[in-house]
Amino acid sequence: MPYPDEFEGFMINEIGKYQDFKKQTFKPKTFGDNDIDIKIECCGVCGSDVHTITGGWGDAPAPICVGHEIVGKAVKVGSQVKDVKVGDRVGVGAQVWSCLKCPQCKNSNENYCPHKVDTYGAPYPKEADPNETLSQGGYSSHIRAHEYFVFPIPDAIPSHLAAPMLCAGLTVWEPLVRANVGPGQQVAIVGLGGLGHFAVMFANALGAEVTVISHSPNKKEDALKLGAKHFVSSGEEGWATPLAFKFDFVLSTADVLSASSLQEYLSTLKVDRKFHSVGLPDDPIKELKPQQLMSNACSIGSSHIGNREECLSMLKLAAEKKLFPMVETVPISEKGCAEVVERVKNNKIHYRFTLVDYDKVFGA
Amino acid sequence: MPYPDEFEGFMINEIGKYQDFKKQTFKPKTFGDNDIDIKIECCGVCGSDVHTITGGWGDAPAPICVGHEIVGKAVKVGSQVKDVKVGDRVGVGAQVWSCLKCPQCKNSNENYCPHKVDTYGAPYPKEADPNETLSQGGYSSHIRAHEYFVFPIPDAIPSHLAAPMLCAGLTVWEPLVRANVGPGQQVAIVGLGGLGHFAVMFANALGAEVTVISHSPNKKEDALKLGAKHFVSSGEEGWATPLAFKFDFVLSTADVLSASSLQEYLSTLKVDRKFHSVGLPDDPIKELKPQQLMSNACSIGSSHIGNREECLSMLKLAAEKKLFPMVETVPISEKGCAEVVERVKNNKIHYRFTLVDYDKVFGA
Repeated sequence: MPYPDEFEGFMINEIGKYQDFKKQTFKPKTFGDNDIDIKIECCGVCGSDVHTITGGWGDAPAPICVGHEIVGKAVKVGSQVKDVKVGDRVGVGAQVWSCLKCPQCKNSNENYCPHKVDTYGAPYPKEADPNETLSQGGYSSHIRAHEYFVFPIPDAIPSHLAAPMLCAGLTVWEPLVRANVGPGQQVAIVGLGGLGHFAVMFANALGAEVTVISHSPNKKEDALKLGAKHFVSSGEEGWATPLAFKFDFVLSTADVLSASSLQEYLSTLKVDRKFHSVGLPDDPIKELKPQQLMSNACSIGSSHIGNREECLSMLKLAAEKKLFPMVETVPISEKGCAEVVERVKNNKIHYRFTLVDYDKVFGA
Repeated sequence: MPYPDEFEGFMINEIGKYQDFKKQTFKPKTFGDNDIDIKIECCGVCGSDVHTITGGWGDAPAPICVGHEIVGKAVKVGSQVKDVKVGDRVGVGAQVWSCLKCPQCKNSNENYCPHKVDTYGAPYPKEADPNETLSQGGYSSHIRAHEYFVFPIPDAIPSHLAAPMLCAGLTVWEPLVRANVGPGQQVAIVGLGGLGHFAVMFANALGAEVTVISHSPNKKEDALKLGAKHFVSSGEEGWATPLAFKFDFVLSTADVLSASSLQEYLSTLKVDRKFHSVGLPDDPIKELKPQQLMSNACSIGSSHIGNREECLSMLKLAAEKKLFPMVETVPISEKGCAEVVERVKNNKIHYRFTLVDYDKVFGA
């Protein structure tokens, strides 16, 4: 085992060759006083991992080790670390560093810090690491992260179920919370995949009446089981007409967003409300006119994960109400990684994967 | 004079032939118990008039009499009318009717009523007029409108200055008010034309620190005179960089919105804030990705005029603080109408036109 000088991970060496995972070593950033090293127990598989290594979101650096839904045990903590001790079970999501000094950071918007470092594929700024090392993710033996981005995992949540919350869960939790979703509100969740199934549970737990809008009529049963009150099949002509001016908030988790479907979603909003897309399609919306937003003064927005406080409040609620994702576990290996990314790419997933059995390949 | 059976107006008989104004008569809607007939004294010239008769916003019915910034005297009031008496000086903006029954209307969002009737070019529903007459605007002798859409004009505001407030003014006032613009806030106004110059005055009067962003460096003097504290010329490369994360609200009044300029405007917003476009370009934004909204969780919105309450509060503030638009008056005639629409189309305007001297062509 090369730790602590090097970490080991299942890496992609050329963007586009997204199934060619190789177990190899990489150098982590220089250890800092606020850093925590985590021996990884498991890691969720996120759509972002796949968009990155296929090149769907554009070019990315390689070799790259993806994975940003990480749960494990702290094995080393920097001298300035306050709240985490060696042995604690902790998690890391899609961000490992921010400057903590800019107006965004000072305003609990560290997830929008212009200097932020994503969990993988992002160079550390010199002030955080003299080597400006590229960050690497959690399909690996260890991760090193700033304590601000390391979250204690409540005992009530098993590791393989906590992992997907740290990106997928938080990505939908933040906009629901910031839109003040609560009792008396009508909320639509577009798309019932990894993100969507979290969104239904969370919006329901926050007290809203939830409608799932999905292309797949066969998702109805799951939608209702997760807490939705209504299910609308968007494959049916004219589905949006009876929903005009209905919703206080529409949260889209769909990976495809055509101009015509967008127009239908927008029409379902009350006056002065938002269509919020956390689904990030590879293809842009062709042609948008401000006129399309006029008839109900709606807006179109997006967001990026959530802040520390929101991550902690999500984990607390999930622990209390047992809001656990539907997860299929797959032992990590070159073959296991290749299989899960292919299945995510082809949407053969129900609803989330977590890579497990890390001790078998990286040692106990 | 054909009144009250027919009204007379300067009309366009074929969409596209936007300079061929002919003085001719038209039939108003059937008079209802809540209707008010107004003998028009003057009417502002709005960009909408030009977009409509050029066909820039698509097809429109013809013959059409445009104009929806109308001030005049009530000459007849229906038996149910409460607050307006014959002889009162009143105004009408871009809307003359709504159902007043739907959830939008009941919630002071009558400007988003799905059954609303625009001041010109819209058929009345049967419940409002058995003949389903097409509405006609204010380049004319008279207008007939539902009392809910007729506003008393405060004595302090001369008619030719009140007129442009009723569409242009209200169009920017509503989003400023609904965004809670006020002291301590940084607000950007994009574009300094008819809409923009109102927006600068209003945002400043509401207490915000205003920055004007304009392509035309020669607008700086006017911007500062109207109340802006800063002026940024968007023709200069890299203009947006020092403004990153600066604004609480960006109100765009620009008539052209390219994908690249949009991206720059969005970058100037604080986290979770809105870029609001009341400029309605003929051409759509090519390509929008939710990713573009992620780095500061911003949103893109629009709106449609304002409600009655907002119109009254705008007129009150304008009267109290003497917030008057810069207006050039032009006597109404076939030639006068042709001249002003051509000048609006070519942006040869400073900052608003009001057609006047109605008594000379329509009688006293």
